[in-house]
Formats: sequence, structure tokens, C-alpha cells
Amino acid sequence: MTCNEINEQVLKFLILDMCKIKTIQARLQRRKIDAILISQPDNRFYLSSFSARDYDISESSGYLLIPRSGTPLLLTDFRYQEQAERECSNFEVMIYKNGLWGLLARLCKSLNLCTLAFESHYFLYEQALRLKNICQDLHIALLPISNLVEKLRVNKSHLELDLIRRSVRLNERVFQEIYPTISAADTEIDVALRLENAMRTLGATGPSFATIVASGPNAAMPHAVPSRHKIVPGVPLIIDMGLVLAGYCSDMTRSIVLGTPTPQTVNIFRIVRQAQLTAIKAISPGTLCKDVDAAARSIISANGFGANFGHSLGHGVGVAVHEEPRLGPRCAKKLRAGMVVTIEPGIYIPGWGGVRLENMAGVTVDGCEIFNNDKTFLDI
Amino acid sequence: MTCNEINEQVLKFLILDMCKIKTIQARLQRRKIDAILISQPDNRFYLSSFSARDYDISESSGYLLIPRSGTPLLLTDFRYQEQAERECSNFEVMIYKNGLWGLLARLCKSLNLCTLAFESHYFLYEQALRLKNICQDLHIALLPISNLVEKLRVNKSHLELDLIRRSVRLNERVFQEIYPTISAADTEIDVALRLENAMRTLGATGPSFATIVASGPNAAMPHAVPSRHKIVPGVPLIIDMGLVLAGYCSDMTRSIVLGTPTPQTVNIFRIVRQAQLTAIKAISPGTLCKDVDAAARSIISANGFGANFGHSLGHGVGVAVHEEPRLGPRCAKKLRAGMVVTIEPGIYIPGWGGVRLENMAGVTVDGCEIFNNDKTFLDI
Repeated sequence: MTCNEINEQVLKFLILDMCKIKTIQARLQRRKIDAILISQPDNRFYLSSFSARDYDISESSGYLLIPRSGTPLLLTDFRYQEQAERECSNFEVMIYKNGLWGLLARLCKSLNLCTLAFESHYFLYEQALRLKNICQDLHIALLPISNLVEKLRVNKSHLELDLIRRSVRLNERVFQEIYPTISAADTEIDVALRLENAMRTLGATGPSFATIVASGPNAAMPHAVPSRHKIVPGVPLIIDMGLVLAGYCSDMTRSIVLGTPTPQTVNIFRIVRQAQLTAIKAISPGTLCKDVDAAARSIISANGFGANFGHSLGHGVGVAVHEEPRLGPRCAKKLRAGMVVTIEPGIYIPGWGGVRLENMAGVTVDGCEIFNNDKTFLDI
Repeated sequence: MTCNEINEQVLKFLILDMCKIKTIQARLQRRKIDAILISQPDNRFYLSSFSARDYDISESSGYLLIPRSGTPLLLTDFRYQEQAERECSNFEVMIYKNGLWGLLARLCKSLNLCTLAFESHYFLYEQALRLKNICQDLHIALLPISNLVEKLRVNKSHLELDLIRRSVRLNERVFQEIYPTISAADTEIDVALRLENAMRTLGATGPSFATIVASGPNAAMPHAVPSRHKIVPGVPLIIDMGLVLAGYCSDMTRSIVLGTPTPQTVNIFRIVRQAQLTAIKAISPGTLCKDVDAAARSIISANGFGANFGHSLGHGVGVAVHEEPRLGPRCAKKLRAGMVVTIEPGIYIPGWGGVRLENMAGVTVDGCEIFNNDKTFLDI
């Protein structure tokens, strides 16, 4: 990319960010809410581009206060001041000294708020009581609101789709670089380390979740943690990996085999792949999420492994690696163009192992675009 | 370690775990609470040894339900069943299918609870409303409780102190292995990657927080994120790193210089080290946390850099890398033997950089034991 192209991209981003804020403000106006306090870290990044991470929910690196008109505010402490001012040019950066509460109370007063919304799905109970007290003192009506920003995040813009595609492609490049180096002399941890190392060396911010490398019996646990066991030849090795690039996540699973796959391995592998292809065909705008899940599940069940596919088929991906929509048996929501989902059927057999295959797709006006190019799994 | 020694250690751990549960149950009895629901992940690990991590607070890998007498329960989903049963032999593992709520309601009924406490400092507002509804339906009094387990965690047992010492020593070994390889050809990210890689190669579960490697102006931000800038010779390079070993954290900061330090660097370095030594001398049972902070701060202020030391002097470390007690200007709590704290004064000058030095210490009956052996920083 040339400098001009990058500048253009930054400019697009700024405009886009302002559009997001305008959308939020329009919703606040419609619901007669004077301001909303954003505490969910992915929402904070999505709206402000502030890329600081939280140590955990009890140690936030900052909050957004978005009034229903005018300049939005980013509230943080002195440690993040420089970063916030550099990254959030559309926001007024305000620094709190002894925690959020004093500054927030002053702002509520100076902004003359009558109603304040907060993200009840990402706000600690104890903090909410504190916020209630502040609002009571100032005669402000406090409104718990859930998933306002998450609902916007579901619909990806062209720029976001482009960033997600890049994230997926970089993730594949990492996999392809490490795949030929994997041998039976490696432990699961060795492989996970090489993958995460390559992610950062090749330009990712880091992994989007703790890389899963699980061989033989360990692969029977969908959320296996890489162990110090050596990789078992002949049976599947599950590699579930993702990275963050420019704030956007990727997520991919490959199941590979060292040496000659056993007949059981080949059989299960083919069922999982067939389930995946069937689900991909089912994806189109208007289709219910649970119907896509059912498409894959019916193949696995018809082959007698229904009880061995215990998780949902997939999930949305964006600034968070797990977000809406959920492709699960109980999700009655409709897919829409611009959504991004994983398609990851799996079969897990305790004591033996498991196979999972995962690609990412963007829902288009007439079906879906698979973001992945990697076909390594077809080796089997 | 021989197998017998390891078995002995495991046995000790099991006994210790039961002691912790007994302590919690005694407190419940004293407060006439029938059971407590534990949601805070570090508390969960501390009480149960269940080592699964949460993706975030919205995606918990499990909860503990501790009745005031009898067997404690671990509630999780099928993905963690195998791990939970292997790791938590003192607990009865119960699997929920569609989230926590259904199983919890059934258990509340079958345990005949009249009062249930929950961790209000680590429970989402929206979840708390759901829990309230369940309790209302079952005529159970719901009690918000804060930091019950955290208060236990502050006092480390001999076994815990031993594990923390090991974590600190391994962290130092990682630093000492990578330190001689650092050159002006490296970017901050290069060094951070090599450190985190060495942590895992040498046996750590992983870093206890995102490693900070900050050179020159970037070092002026106490929470700097490693960048693609090359390391600046002559001025300090701050390396703040920690790892997790057997569930226990370490945390250490070294400020090093490539090439000849400038006079400004040497001057600031000496002030910070003097502040650290003064604070260490101030540590003893009965001393107020804020007085230890003040001991370091007065040295930095006396040298004219009071405004450049914007954070607290230190914090507790254990199963979490940040825990009680806080060594800050407003903490009026008293130190007690068995507490573990960091001592990490720093001076940060925007545009120039910063120096921070951090060791870990255990409070003893007559002072403190510094866990660190590394003296690399005395090179300057």
C-alpha cells in the first residue's frame, strides 16, 4: 500500500467512525436518552478506535460517554492519555484521577443529563449500584440497555469486510508457514508456540484467542489446552487458531494427520467436511441461523455421530472473535448480507480424539463468500 | 523433584484446598448464609484448582457453588467436563446444558437454600437480575457479597509462597536468557516475542500479562504496548514481564540501557533505585500500605520528579497478577506477614522516556523477603 492509500484508508475510517457515532446518537434521540456510557471493550474500540485492552472487567482502560448530540467523550486515566489522544481524534479525551466516578458525576452535571443509559450486559453489579447512587443524587434516570452497539457490529461495512479478509489471509499464511514444520517430535505446546510466534512476526497484533493444538485423545475436548504430549501419528491433530490484524479477528480450524490416516480418521473427516459444505450451501440472507446449524447437524447425525457434535455450528466474528450471530440449534435470527460467520462442525470421540473444520464466510446478497483459500485439509 | 515429592505436593495441595473450602464454609456459617456462588475466575481457581480460563466475563468456563456444609460443586459445560473431573477431585462436577440458570435453580431447590450469596464485584448487572428472579421464585434471599475469597487470598500459605518464588525465579531465568540477545537492531515487539516465547519454552503456562517492552519516548507510558520501533541506545529500555507457573504469577520490571547511558539516564535510574530500596526498608507487618508508597514517593519528590510518578508503588500478586493489597497513596490497610507485593517506583518524562524498577517481596514477621535474585539493573 502506498502512503496515499493508507491515508485514504485512515480518512475512510474516521468518516466511518463518525457514521457509527451518528447512528448511535440517532438511536439515543429516538429513544429519548440523553447519553450512553459504553463499558464493553470491543464496543469501545469499534466506536472510538481506542485500541487499549483491559486487564479484566475490574480494570478497564476507559469508557465512552456518548451524548445524543455533539462531541463524544473518551474517559480514561493518565496511563492511556497519549494513546487515547493519538487514536481517537473524533473524541474529546478526559482524564480521571481516582477512578471513573468523580469525573462521570461532573460530566453528567455539566451535560445536563436527564437520562443516562449504561451497558447492563457488561457492567458489574457493584458498579451499577454506584452508578445508580450518582444518578439518584443528580435526579438522572438510569436505563439499563443491552447490545445496542453489538447490533450495529453485526453488519459489517465494506472496509470491515476487507480488514476481516486480510486477517483471515494472514492467519492462513501463518498456518501454511508452520504446517510443513510439524512433526511427531513436536509437543502440542511446541506447535502452538510456533504458530503464535509466526502470527506476531508476520504482523498480527497477536492471537485472537489462545491457540488450540490438540492431538489424539486431547482433541476430543473442543476447548483443549495444548499439552506437553507429543503429537500422535495417524489420528487427527486439531489446530484452531486466529489472530488480530488492525483490530479485526480471524478464526480457523484445520485437522491434519501426521503419517497415514487410519480408516476411522478418513471416515470421520469426510463426514465433517460434508457437514461443512452442506452448511455453506445453506447460508443466504433470510435463512434462520438454526437452519444452517441443522443443515450440518443432520449430516453428522445421519452418520451416527449426532451425540458427538456437542457445540454450535458457528458464531459471528469481527472486532471480537465471538460475537453475533450465533449459528446454534436455538437461534431463530435471520442471516443478513454483511454478516460474518464461522462454519465449524466437529465430531469428538472420548478416548480417540476429534476432527473439526472451520472456515469463515461473509453473507452476500445471494449466498456467501468463503474468506479462506487454504485447502490443506483436503490432503486427507 | 522425584515422583514421591510430587505426589506429596499434590496431597498437600488437596489438603490445602479442603482447608480453603472449610474456611469459606465457616464464614458462611458465621454469617448464616446457606451457600455462595463463586464467579470470579481467580477465586474459582484458588478454591478448586480448576485451571480453565474464561474467554471473558460473558463467557465463563464455570462457577462454584459452595454450600455451608458438605461437598462443594463445580458447575460447567460439557467442553470442560473431562478437565474439571481431573482437576477438581474435591468437588462434585455438574454439567449444565443451556447455560447456568436451569441447573442453578434445580440445585438451589435440592439444597433447600434459604439464602444465597453471590460475588457482586464480579457478576454482571444483567446476570444479577436473572439470579434475583430465580431466587424470588424460590423464596431465597439473595445477598451481594464482595471480596470474601479475595480476603483469604491475601494471606499466602507456605506452599503458595514457594510457588510464587518459583514463578519469580523462572521469570528471572527467562529475562537473563534473553537480556544478552537484545540489540539496537531489535524492535520492541521482537524482544517481547522472544521473552514470551522463552517463558513457554522454559515451562511457564504463559505470560501473566502482556509483556511491556518500551524504549525511549514509548517508555514514558507506564502501560506502553511494544511497537515496531527499534530500541533507542543510551536511554532506558523498560521491560515489564511476568509469567504464570502452576497457577501462580510473577511480575518484574527491569530498565536496561543499550550502549552508554546518558547522564540524565544515570541520574533518574539512581533516584528510582533509591526510592525502591527505601520502600523495601519500610515494609514490615503493621506498616500501612500508604506509608510504604510514601517512603518511595518522598525520595522521588525530593529529587523534583514527584509529578512524574503517576501510579501506585505496588500491588499484591498471587493467582492474579494484580490483587490485594495495593501499595498506593490512599490505602490505609496494614501489611501482614504472608502478604506478597511488588515494589515498583518509576519516573516518566514525556518525550524522553522512563525508568521503572520492580521486584517482588513477601512480608515476613520482621520485615520482608525479596524474591528476586536478578541484579542486572545494577549494570547502570
